[in-house]
Amino acid sequence: MMPALAVSRRTRSTPFTSRVEAMGVKAYTVYNHMLLPTAFKGVEEDYWHLCEHVQVWDVSCERQVEITGPDAEKLIQLMTPRDLSSARAGQCFYLPICDEKGMLINDPIAIKHSDSHWWLSIADSDVKLLAKGIAIGMQLDVEVCEPEVWPLAVQGPKAEELMTRIFGEHVRDIRFFNYRNLDYRGTKMLVARSGWSKQGGFEIYVNDSEMGGILWDELFSKGEDLQVAPGCPNLIERIESGLLSFGNDMDYGDTPLECGLNKYVSLTADINSLSIDALRNSTPRHQLVGLVCQGQQSFTAMGVYMQELCVGEITSYAWSPRYGVTLAMARCSNVALETDVSLTVNSDAGVQTVVLSRLPFNFNDLGLIAHEANQSKPVSGKPV
Amino acid sequence: MMPALAVSRRTRSTPFTSRVEAMGVKAYTVYNHMLLPTAFKGVEEDYWHLCEHVQVWDVSCERQVEITGPDAEKLIQLMTPRDLSSARAGQCFYLPICDEKGMLINDPIAIKHSDSHWWLSIADSDVKLLAKGIAIGMQLDVEVCEPEVWPLAVQGPKAEELMTRIFGEHVRDIRFFNYRNLDYRGTKMLVARSGWSKQGGFEIYVNDSEMGGILWDELFSKGEDLQVAPGCPNLIERIESGLLSFGNDMDYGDTPLECGLNKYVSLTADINSLSIDALRNSTPRHQLVGLVCQGQQSFTAMGVYMQELCVGEITSYAWSPRYGVTLAMARCSNVALETDVSLTVNSDAGVQTVVLSRLPFNFNDLGLIAHEANQSKPVSGKPV
Repeated sequence: MMPALAVSRRTRSTPFTSRVEAMGVKAYTVYNHMLLPTAFKGVEEDYWHLCEHVQVWDVSCERQVEITGPDAEKLIQLMTPRDLSSARAGQCFYLPICDEKGMLINDPIAIKHSDSHWWLSIADSDVKLLAKGIAIGMQLDVEVCEPEVWPLAVQGPKAEELMTRIFGEHVRDIRFFNYRNLDYRGTKMLVARSGWSKQGGFEIYVNDSEMGGILWDELFSKGEDLQVAPGCPNLIERIESGLLSFGNDMDYGDTPLECGLNKYVSLTADINSLSIDALRNSTPRHQLVGLVCQGQQSFTAMGVYMQELCVGEITSYAWSPRYGVTLAMARCSNVALETDVSLTVNSDAGVQTVVLSRLPFNFNDLGLIAHEANQSKPVSGKPV
Repeated sequence: MMPALAVSRRTRSTPFTSRVEAMGVKAYTVYNHMLLPTAFKGVEEDYWHLCEHVQVWDVSCERQVEITGPDAEKLIQLMTPRDLSSARAGQCFYLPICDEKGMLINDPIAIKHSDSHWWLSIADSDVKLLAKGIAIGMQLDVEVCEPEVWPLAVQGPKAEELMTRIFGEHVRDIRFFNYRNLDYRGTKMLVARSGWSKQGGFEIYVNDSEMGGILWDELFSKGEDLQVAPGCPNLIERIESGLLSFGNDMDYGDTPLECGLNKYVSLTADINSLSIDALRNSTPRHQLVGLVCQGQQSFTAMGVYMQELCVGEITSYAWSPRYGVTLAMARCSNVALETDVSLTVNSDAGVQTVVLSRLPFNFNDLGLIAHEANQSKPVSGKPV
């Protein structure tokens, strides 16, 4: 059973909280000192709906760290090992943010407004304080702040249809990880084709709380025939899709090279990044991998074992109703990755053998067959 | 009714979580990305118990930012406008942490181990990232990290008695906001006379999770006759005592001079602090004040009004069973403080007139009489 959450001013509400509660939010987490819904009808029911229809998500907790001024791009480049020299306004970039040792501090989506104006749409750590500290220490000519922006995500296969009903046909022209500033009742809102699912969709960077409420209501009234529903980042969907969660699957104890984020680290580029030298000289000590476990498991401890030896740690897991297995992400030491000995984990059904996988999972290679919603037959993990 | 909290690896558990749950924790908040209990028997019952007996609090979420190296003290002084030149090892210091504009970023207890070794026992923001940023930017010779330390607080009038049964009679010699490194079963633990209540007590900086569990159990077995109970920072007690909560009563939008923290800002000292010039030149735009409202109120909005004009915002509030009134903290504009017009707030019982007070509340001056537990008679805020 879930514990209760004591809400206060410190666990900030959003312009959409009253609507989210009226629509039956079941649970929250706290993310960037702000409420983030985690379930409406239930994680599994929400999952099937997300994969088939369209959902509106209150992801206001994706706070923006706004960096403006002549040194804005310089500061962003200092914080990330990804080469930004060819970045253009209108684009979004997934960026590892790393310290001088190459350790991860966050993994935002960066939004380039112009050379002198960037947003970092952050995961759960106070990147603003790192940016402020570096700017103060280096006397950079920038302003760092957290503007009043509350992203709304519209996700799912019918997201594009719903978005065109609100913002017009040119929504269809926005390419993946690109954005446009679109008019909504006289207010310009940044709309990006992005979002924390693989079901397709958009993020609307709402910059006016009252207009945000009107927009929310219109998304629901215009999407009724599309079966629009409130939703939130879905644990099952994001694990099936191999989307990593900072603080869960990776944290200050990992380099991006230990999390499969190699393509976002420009090891050979000539860039002025705090972390690049450390990353060039680093040797990964572990890797983030996928684990597949038969049946619907509830793990009783997070260790991953090779015989008696603990060789890893489960960082997230969920029952996949589509594939009929429990999928986990785990941080495993190199020894676990190079062995022929089978790996095991502990669930309330006893010791379970797991199959190691790359991330994202390749279900074909794993020999797993997809079920549709009405075929889903959870297999008990308990010995019969 | 409280919403549910979805717990994950990101909302970190503590070495005491299993014990806290076995003892019936009713709700959590998330603080520094970690679980913090907020009630056991209920906030009011916990309150009376705290004021009469002794409680053990899992405040592991008071994370330590450890700064070591030749420039450690320099970095700490840069981050705070409080003069640290006379700080000695063995002492604790309440420090506003401010940015270059004098705006609050945190209000930790600093613990000086030596000139080259400090801990900041932080409130809810990632001070580690600010410290890292400044250190990187200024090329300071320091290491910044978050060590494996999980504070346990022992609070209440019988705390000293319980602590001597564990650590010996020399616990009594520890003065307020001083600490000693004491032996516990062969492990040295830092023990300070401090804690987030005004009922007296200690904080034990547990640095070994297994030993922490043994210590927890011993506190309960040796405190049985003292009616020891699990507890947590108590909303009623901390508001009655005027203890401010960063993120609730003050945040990035306040200077310490706007929160009554003047005595922790060394305006006339010759210190190398990032914020001191800005604070010297600042004019407070608002103040954090107390509000007293008759009856047991449930506020329906957080605004404070002078006739039609919104002149402030309630930041925290609680029913005080001891004084039979609702006590609030509020951020009020200067105009609200200088008026003779009465201020009002909105509760589910309608518009309520409030009495303005300094913080901490002076109940004598306010003409409020203290009741003991068995005399407590909540007065309905609803019109009869």
